[in-house]
Amino acid sequence: MALDIKPGQEFIKSKAAVAWAAGEPLKMEEVEVQLPKKGEVLVRIVATGVCHTDAFTLSGEDPEGIFPAILGHEGGGIVEMVGEGVTSVQVGDHVIPLYTAECRECKFCTSGKTNLCQAVRETQGKGLMPDGTTRFSINGQPIFHYMGCSTFSEYTVLPEISLAKVNPEAPLEEVCLLGCGVTTGMGAVLNTAKVEKGDTVAIFGLGGIGLSAIIGARMAGASRIIGIDINESKFDLAKQLGATDVINPQSIDVPIQEYIVEMTDGGVDYSFECIGNVNVMRQALECCHKGWGESVIIGVAGAGQEIATRPFQLVTGRVWRGSAFGGVKGRSELPEIVERYMAGEFGLEEFITHTMSLEEVNHAFDLMHEGKSIRSVIHMDR
Amino acid sequence: MALDIKPGQEFIKSKAAVAWAAGEPLKMEEVEVQLPKKGEVLVRIVATGVCHTDAFTLSGEDPEGIFPAILGHEGGGIVEMVGEGVTSVQVGDHVIPLYTAECRECKFCTSGKTNLCQAVRETQGKGLMPDGTTRFSINGQPIFHYMGCSTFSEYTVLPEISLAKVNPEAPLEEVCLLGCGVTTGMGAVLNTAKVEKGDTVAIFGLGGIGLSAIIGARMAGASRIIGIDINESKFDLAKQLGATDVINPQSIDVPIQEYIVEMTDGGVDYSFECIGNVNVMRQALECCHKGWGESVIIGVAGAGQEIATRPFQLVTGRVWRGSAFGGVKGRSELPEIVERYMAGEFGLEEFITHTMSLEEVNHAFDLMHEGKSIRSVIHMDR
Repeated sequence: MALDIKPGQEFIKSKAAVAWAAGEPLKMEEVEVQLPKKGEVLVRIVATGVCHTDAFTLSGEDPEGIFPAILGHEGGGIVEMVGEGVTSVQVGDHVIPLYTAECRECKFCTSGKTNLCQAVRETQGKGLMPDGTTRFSINGQPIFHYMGCSTFSEYTVLPEISLAKVNPEAPLEEVCLLGCGVTTGMGAVLNTAKVEKGDTVAIFGLGGIGLSAIIGARMAGASRIIGIDINESKFDLAKQLGATDVINPQSIDVPIQEYIVEMTDGGVDYSFECIGNVNVMRQALECCHKGWGESVIIGVAGAGQEIATRPFQLVTGRVWRGSAFGGVKGRSELPEIVERYMAGEFGLEEFITHTMSLEEVNHAFDLMHEGKSIRSVIHMDR
Repeated sequence: MALDIKPGQEFIKSKAAVAWAAGEPLKMEEVEVQLPKKGEVLVRIVATGVCHTDAFTLSGEDPEGIFPAILGHEGGGIVEMVGEGVTSVQVGDHVIPLYTAECRECKFCTSGKTNLCQAVRETQGKGLMPDGTTRFSINGQPIFHYMGCSTFSEYTVLPEISLAKVNPEAPLEEVCLLGCGVTTGMGAVLNTAKVEKGDTVAIFGLGGIGLSAIIGARMAGASRIIGIDINESKFDLAKQLGATDVINPQSIDVPIQEYIVEMTDGGVDYSFECIGNVNVMRQALECCHKGWGESVIIGVAGAGQEIATRPFQLVTGRVWRGSAFGGVKGRSELPEIVERYMAGEFGLEEFITHTMSLEEVNHAFDLMHEGKSIRSVIHMDR
């Protein structure tokens, strides 16, 4: 069902959930979406997950948060129109929006060492398209983009380099989760840490990211996968996905890092912090095995917060690193992850605890804050 | 000149510089050295460097410091007698004492991932031989070992697994420095960080370790080697050894990490902290390139001190690690480093600013504290 664009038409109307200010519920609005300019693509969002990062920004804790904006960054959609010069996608393609672009030309993309393309970083951080303007407005008032994606809108505009073209047979209502959470957790294990068969792993925080890390560890053949959370209601699913042990740090008598070092005869080979809590980041490092254990920070901490440890932890062989979007290059590697999903190597349905319409997005945030959801997925056609 | 040991003899006399208490000058004593027991070796020390770690322990800041003890851990010597069951060295062999043993049997040695053998770790940390006793005494009072080496004694006893057998043609008065400082700095660059041709490197602190790191970076073919120190008198030698840039952080207007990020268009590929200052450790991390820069902590911080940074530094791709004894396995790899020295790949004479007798050891500490020496080497026969 292609859009009917008339000659000279400059924008289309779209329903969207707008974040007018930090701490306020999103409000449904009809926004004007400008048609894509050079190098840009108009995408109709089919489905989008609601991620903790959306909630983090909405809360006002995110120092980079800008309002008013259209949040959402974990989507799946279909290309409706391409701007001048766009060659890598065409109308009808199924795409996953990327908050980490892949230009294939910058120093970062060509380094072979990182997925952190910087091509659109600066404008994206300001809620703008690469040309320094926004494509969203209401009665002439600009509405900002969010993480370059803004998937809480029926229609959104992205740079071509921020779209992964994926198998059109993949259900967008599920693979949208590969646009953030699942890829982030799985990729941190498989790409960043490169966990190998037989390794021992500890995963702190059993939300969407942590559960995805468990899946990644299982796929890597880890011999022991220890899940840690203070919410024991997450333990059943963690075990179902592959956790061999689950621990509630509040129900043991010693610090969690000591407990894990003891139970693993010296510590784990790899640990992952999937919460964004700087104290847990320290625990995750210190539960690693002396001599070689590596800890990967995935969670995003609040503004100004710092991690700390004794340098002796590192001098005696532990390594502290981080991972963003699972170290995955979106355009080059995300399509393969979709294929692995299609081949049945891992499931996504376990993550989707709720589905709803865009009008119900605030309910998704409530469920998240109450710890009742892993992922709520919004179906735009509802 | 072999020792003349009579049947039934249990000990020999040896001159030694004894640290009776923290903060006090060493005192020359005649100590009794028990002959080596099972798996142990009696070594006549020919020469020993005086390292900052000796000064650190003597100062009382080292939480593991034990007194009275015979300090010194950067030595070179000759095997005088072997205990029962010793097979890897024999009388007359030239050896470098190892404060990091290599048993080739423990979980650490067999992991292939670390040089941090734990075989004698516990007793060594208590100033004892593996059987839980000391070999040194004065009038029946036990004197403790130090870092398993105690090279400030004409005769010392070590476990067989704590000795690297080296080329007998290598001058012990020089290669003794490979027992700690030089190997630590060079190894951190070549073994731990694995710096490659063309990489950019920043080295914080231009003492013996930092200068050795410069040599390592030069051997690796680094394209830019930035030396940082507040003592500009070290700059000439740093440049002579291979530094391409030298910076005094007190003579610039911006924080050193910002300065380096600016001058290197984004940061260095690798940085090394060679001081033991937790604030500098943070600077070293934060001057690394986003996406892939790695910082290696070599310096030993004071008791209870902590490193800190924003986790965003790691999530955006920087890696924080540490290195002990340059990641070098003493028995397996140190002999090769001696060979590289013999082949002229690097020099050691540049490090030796002073030579003296054991009686002058306190002067060596004074020179160090005054910043006037890189290394003082004690010749035992003086």
